[in-house]
Amino acid sequence: MLADWAVDIGSGGTVTIVATSPAKELVTALHGEIGKRSAEPVTIMASLDTTIGPSGEHVAEFLSNHDGEFETPSHLQALVEETDVMIGIRSDTNTHVLSHVSNDIQQRRAKAMAPILQTLMGMEQAVLTPHPTDAWAQRAGMSLPEYEDFLYGAMLRDWETQDEKQERMRERLEAADEARIVGPDTDLTMSLDGMHAVNDIGDLNFPPGEVYTAPVVDSIEGEIRFDVPSIMQGEEVADVHLTLEDGVVTEYSARRNEAALESVLETDIGSNRIGEFGIGMNHDIDRVTKQVSLDEKLGGTVHLALGRAYGRTVGKGYERNQSAIHVDLIKDMSEGRLELDGEVVQEDDEFGWT
Amino acid sequence: MLADWAVDIGSGGTVTIVATSPAKELVTALHGEIGKRSAEPVTIMASLDTTIGPSGEHVAEFLSNHDGEFETPSHLQALVEETDVMIGIRSDTNTHVLSHVSNDIQQRRAKAMAPILQTLMGMEQAVLTPHPTDAWAQRAGMSLPEYEDFLYGAMLRDWETQDEKQERMRERLEAADEARIVGPDTDLTMSLDGMHAVNDIGDLNFPPGEVYTAPVVDSIEGEIRFDVPSIMQGEEVADVHLTLEDGVVTEYSARRNEAALESVLETDIGSNRIGEFGIGMNHDIDRVTKQVSLDEKLGGTVHLALGRAYGRTVGKGYERNQSAIHVDLIKDMSEGRLELDGEVVQEDDEFGWT
Repeated sequence: MLADWAVDIGSGGTVTIVATSPAKELVTALHGEIGKRSAEPVTIMASLDTTIGPSGEHVAEFLSNHDGEFETPSHLQALVEETDVMIGIRSDTNTHVLSHVSNDIQQRRAKAMAPILQTLMGMEQAVLTPHPTDAWAQRAGMSLPEYEDFLYGAMLRDWETQDEKQERMRERLEAADEARIVGPDTDLTMSLDGMHAVNDIGDLNFPPGEVYTAPVVDSIEGEIRFDVPSIMQGEEVADVHLTLEDGVVTEYSARRNEAALESVLETDIGSNRIGEFGIGMNHDIDRVTKQVSLDEKLGGTVHLALGRAYGRTVGKGYERNQSAIHVDLIKDMSEGRLELDGEVVQEDDEFGWT
Repeated sequence: MLADWAVDIGSGGTVTIVATSPAKELVTALHGEIGKRSAEPVTIMASLDTTIGPSGEHVAEFLSNHDGEFETPSHLQALVEETDVMIGIRSDTNTHVLSHVSNDIQQRRAKAMAPILQTLMGMEQAVLTPHPTDAWAQRAGMSLPEYEDFLYGAMLRDWETQDEKQERMRERLEAADEARIVGPDTDLTMSLDGMHAVNDIGDLNFPPGEVYTAPVVDSIEGEIRFDVPSIMQGEEVADVHLTLEDGVVTEYSARRNEAALESVLETDIGSNRIGEFGIGMNHDIDRVTKQVSLDEKLGGTVHLALGRAYGRTVGKGYERNQSAIHVDLIKDMSEGRLELDGEVVQEDDEFGWT
């Protein structure tokens, strides 16, 4: 499914896999698929998160011993630039592996990695996939077999039917000039005029299941509360509430770990502006598991991301929000509604237009 | 020891580690040392042998599913070219992991990897080190704790005293015009005129302990029997006997797995000529463990390598033997002697000149 649907491994191409040892069997199976396609694999021992977030004990050891300036690793950049297909596997053994590394260090590291993140986000063939480990199962409040059932259930689906459903939403979003999100502590408007919508059916995350675009960056006005917890710098941040004026976050609060939110917002000039607006449409992802790449696909949710916008979503002549970070914030729409150009397209977790 | 003696990790430099999961603790510790030095690490999941020999189950899966032409992986090459310091860790879980992959595939793969091997062999800062795993312990006929004692004993030494001892041999070898190896089924002469000798005190292998040079490639005449078994394409090849004329292998035999020897010799034009002549001087490596990077350092042995010569050993204006391979063959000198310009420098495992 990864090699056939999520990415297209071309003959003679170069493939880079990013994984840690718990994904050993998957890495081995992928090497077989890569061999069949006469491509060339390199596997890097580390995890890739939304900010290529270093995870793994070795990376924690590197960061916590480092008190100088970080440089963009030119050898990693050279590898990524020569890579046709990137497969990131989140095979973490402990999702809090960076807990003892200061936010300051993590932030400085993220800045040094930004050029590599930029290359990755511009790639045609890149996929990030979670791998069932005890760490992720535990965070989701499940045993490993339970979590495996959940995860493979969300992966091994009829993607063609899902594709059609999402494509209708993509067209709707592409055509829309304005979006409005209404709900408890929430009334937010943004212009989508001239921006491009993308149907994510496996080209960025696997399992896929979202449609996303970028709002016109300085057009966002109002307030919004995100009911689904986010993970920032390894910490769970609950009930993030933001107020935006001219697209800039002017007020913020959170019920837990507000300091991590503050640190994220202060990363750079683009980190307190919005780079993405997405709609979660994978109804086999039916519960919060505190893994952002799954939670943002939850059927009946929307999300906004602080930070960097995806190049393909930004219309020609429009500003692309730049940042070292890209942090998704997710809103449960079961008590809310989404309007496009004044028409309700999603209300109380249902799509009004289907 | 690795970070301080074997390589010099400069501030802000790029470090590539090659390892598999059994080396996790060492990889983590190295990341701490790299962090302290403000360098940047990338870790690749694979083992590096003398021909960057793919090992690890995932590589076997890749090779055995591949029936097309191999290309030099451009992304790996880009990474290596941007790497200042290379640390290869032989942390194999099964030294026969490639047994089911045909010699033909392994040979074609080695050819595709040759440009990368060439870059690696020209690097100032590169080290290959064995890691105690059950696989290596078993091959050496030891339990893991026994093997750990042996290996760390050969590593944690007074390298400065050893350095002086080896430096005397290096000077002797550098000055010599002709070398002759005599022993059972052995009488071989070669010109060393104009070639450079290198004192390996940790710049290529760790633990170190050899002095090596390149013979003038077409000057080698005679016969030689190598008593220490070699590993070729995952197979143990015992009692290799070679006859050379004008530096070319004209006759060969082996007691076990002669086919692997034949395949190695037929790799390319340079694979049946000699690229290295070395003298093993680490007397804490006191037994054969069937790991070539250790065996070639055995106190009281010499070795010749089929294939590629190290650039630094070849005098200006002399031919450098080129090949996709570099395979060491080791001779126990306890019943032999080494002469330089007619003077016995090593006899019955003793250095006559010390």
